[in-house]
Amino acid sequence: MSQTPDSAVRTYIDQHRTAFLDDLAEWLRIPSVSAQPHHALDVRRSADWLAGKLKETGFPTAEVWQTPGAPAVYAEWPSDDPAAPTVLVYGHHDVQPAAREDGWDSEPFEPVVRDNRLYARGAADDKGQIFFHTLGVRAHLAATGRSVPAVHLKLLIEGEEESGSPHFRALVEEHAGRLAADAVIVSDTGMWSEDTPTVCTGMRGLAECEIRLYGPDQDIHSGSFGGAVPNPATAVARLVAALHDEQGRVAVPGFYDGVVELTDRERELFAELPFDEQRWLRTAKSHAAQGEAGYTTLERVWARPTAEVNGIGGGYQGAGSKTVIPASAMVKLSFRLVAGQDLDHIERIVRAWAADRLPAGIRHEIAFSPGTRPCLTPLDHPALQSVARAMGRAFGTTVRFTREGGSGPAADLQDVLGAPVLFLGISVPSDGWHAPNEKVELDLLLKGAETGAYLWGDLAANWRHAR
Amino acid sequence: MSQTPDSAVRTYIDQHRTAFLDDLAEWLRIPSVSAQPHHALDVRRSADWLAGKLKETGFPTAEVWQTPGAPAVYAEWPSDDPAAPTVLVYGHHDVQPAAREDGWDSEPFEPVVRDNRLYARGAADDKGQIFFHTLGVRAHLAATGRSVPAVHLKLLIEGEEESGSPHFRALVEEHAGRLAADAVIVSDTGMWSEDTPTVCTGMRGLAECEIRLYGPDQDIHSGSFGGAVPNPATAVARLVAALHDEQGRVAVPGFYDGVVELTDRERELFAELPFDEQRWLRTAKSHAAQGEAGYTTLERVWARPTAEVNGIGGGYQGAGSKTVIPASAMVKLSFRLVAGQDLDHIERIVRAWAADRLPAGIRHEIAFSPGTRPCLTPLDHPALQSVARAMGRAFGTTVRFTREGGSGPAADLQDVLGAPVLFLGISVPSDGWHAPNEKVELDLLLKGAETGAYLWGDLAANWRHAR
Repeated sequence: MSQTPDSAVRTYIDQHRTAFLDDLAEWLRIPSVSAQPHHALDVRRSADWLAGKLKETGFPTAEVWQTPGAPAVYAEWPSDDPAAPTVLVYGHHDVQPAAREDGWDSEPFEPVVRDNRLYARGAADDKGQIFFHTLGVRAHLAATGRSVPAVHLKLLIEGEEESGSPHFRALVEEHAGRLAADAVIVSDTGMWSEDTPTVCTGMRGLAECEIRLYGPDQDIHSGSFGGAVPNPATAVARLVAALHDEQGRVAVPGFYDGVVELTDRERELFAELPFDEQRWLRTAKSHAAQGEAGYTTLERVWARPTAEVNGIGGGYQGAGSKTVIPASAMVKLSFRLVAGQDLDHIERIVRAWAADRLPAGIRHEIAFSPGTRPCLTPLDHPALQSVARAMGRAFGTTVRFTREGGSGPAADLQDVLGAPVLFLGISVPSDGWHAPNEKVELDLLLKGAETGAYLWGDLAANWRHAR
Repeated sequence: MSQTPDSAVRTYIDQHRTAFLDDLAEWLRIPSVSAQPHHALDVRRSADWLAGKLKETGFPTAEVWQTPGAPAVYAEWPSDDPAAPTVLVYGHHDVQPAAREDGWDSEPFEPVVRDNRLYARGAADDKGQIFFHTLGVRAHLAATGRSVPAVHLKLLIEGEEESGSPHFRALVEEHAGRLAADAVIVSDTGMWSEDTPTVCTGMRGLAECEIRLYGPDQDIHSGSFGGAVPNPATAVARLVAALHDEQGRVAVPGFYDGVVELTDRERELFAELPFDEQRWLRTAKSHAAQGEAGYTTLERVWARPTAEVNGIGGGYQGAGSKTVIPASAMVKLSFRLVAGQDLDHIERIVRAWAADRLPAGIRHEIAFSPGTRPCLTPLDHPALQSVARAMGRAFGTTVRFTREGGSGPAADLQDVLGAPVLFLGISVPSDGWHAPNEKVELDLLLKGAETGAYLWGDLAANWRHAR
């Protein structure tokens, strides 16, 4: 999907590179850590700074939206073509906590460039990836001679993503009218590697529950009673052991109902990626690959639903021993979901499965947390093709496709707005999200801007008829 | 096994009842709580008090034996018949912690008699049951006109039983020569009920281990990696689930090697006990009976080996959720063992079983605690028959047989001294061991003394030829 680059775009970006980086550095100096209450004012400052900068960029509307938590920023820049598609860019302006003593080689909120990399908390996650859109849209205008973008451009930049987006869905629902879009572009992910630009086509969803099992009314003596009454710690273990079958498939009846299977084309494309399992295992800090039979590691983490134990506990866990049959035990399970799986259905079948499997004498309770829906955009979706084409022009090479195994608030946008979600990210795995010495590669950051510059025109040209 | 009581024994006991109870009350006022360091001097006082009282009783030798922990009391009173059997009585003078505010109706260390019951910490566990032997042996002498007992009588009363007897085996090994006996009488158990006197014929042994499983080098993101690497919490659950087969039998290969099966006669005798499963479940604070197929509840807790989970843990156990694949998980297992099972063999097969069952990518460690051997005296053992006959004379009714599901230091005596262990206890389940309002039934306490009075003569008469 390599296309011809536009020399006017490149020239514009080259000419404005220094000012763009100076601006980004100014923003990165604001420690907008949403998880730390003493940074609440910094998160607010970050929102105000961004709204001001978007106005400078040319967005006629740029507002700070209050939430019960940290503020979001909303901006819009309508096209002069009423029939053009409307695109909503999503990102976040809050960052993970960071302190020099965590292992940073320089101050996390004092951006520095070393070896053509910009080091700072938020450089890649997510300020840098939001900010390249400001340069991209200006380059788009400069290269095309337009005064407004070719698409109706909207931005929603939340301030609580690193705190689990607790108010995000409500915010989207409240402003669903203004946020209405034909497509959502999420710029909060990454690509395969510096040499292999990729477009993510979906994220897994997430259902989480805690199951508590109750046996004896209190811990009882395992000598006096052992072997003759049900033990809730044994029961919870049997429940967990029954989660999967011998093939590594999730054994909860109905779990795979509706699952959108990988297409042959997707599997081919995944297989073409330069995947090194030993290297991947080092990243996973794990010592073996293991999972559902019939699927590769990438297919397992990107495109297959899972059941994992996040925590298990019961009885005596301290030093030494205590000969008890514990009164209770619990397990925290999370299910990653793929397109076609329904959160309510998953909750229903997990409840039924657990209730069916527990022995007499063991009472149980299950509590589900609010879930996250999966999202997936088919490979042949015209907006996805536009993203891949724009990226191909910027990078000058074939763009491949990935998915993301994690789950995120993007799915709420898809769900509430009814719009497909596309991912445009230029971060690479070595960028160190949430870790010390987070950085962004400057060349990739500018390619992100360039991709944005091509994308709006491509979408306007190729997608208006598809609606 | 009802026999004719001896009116001289009864008369002696009646006449000395008040002084006996006054003495016992004096001992019960000493808060000999071995688990609480601030009572260390009280435990010592208790040992000194007992040694003095045993001398008053007539034991020519009564010594306090130091240990690295709390002191034990040793006493001996040789018979004038060199060919008489030697009997070692075992009990403990330390008690469980107790405080009025735990729910006691009176001060735990201020003994009171209400409704013919003596309430105090240690009344049943175990001071009362040791002390009836002082009255019993005097009644034996008074009724038979002997100046010394018909058997060579030894007592070993330890001071750390409620703290797990950490120095007991070493103490027994150190003094094995002086402790040498033909039989051990443990007076630290109970009987079925006030109406159903019973003799316990064995205790289960205990093997305990902790298994730690290690997966990723640190907790990793269950979205990014879930479904593609082994999860140690899942692995520990599968291990626990594999502990038992569908029949409730322990599925570790070789686990039942050497197990001494219940005889038909024992099963008949167990079945004759007035067992009410609903009532037993209330005692177990449990809501269903469940265990090895083909055995009754009593057989399961008394005579069958088991595997129980005492604790299990891994990953995130706090409030809310955390989407991790945990780095590690652990389980604490305990195996109750019956006669014929060998501690070293059990450790070996459990290690092999765990190693065989863990998936690639999961490293593990197993640590075993020092175990406790099972003990069992066959129904037809002549010393056991003597105990049952003596008890039958005292209680005036048929004596039945039980076993004990728990494990205790008695097995060390059996093991080090090579002597059969017999159990003579008159406590009943309602006595509230380790609970508030511990008590002993005065009538049963005196029947204990009476049983002792008959026992020494019976053993001397019926067992000397059997050696």
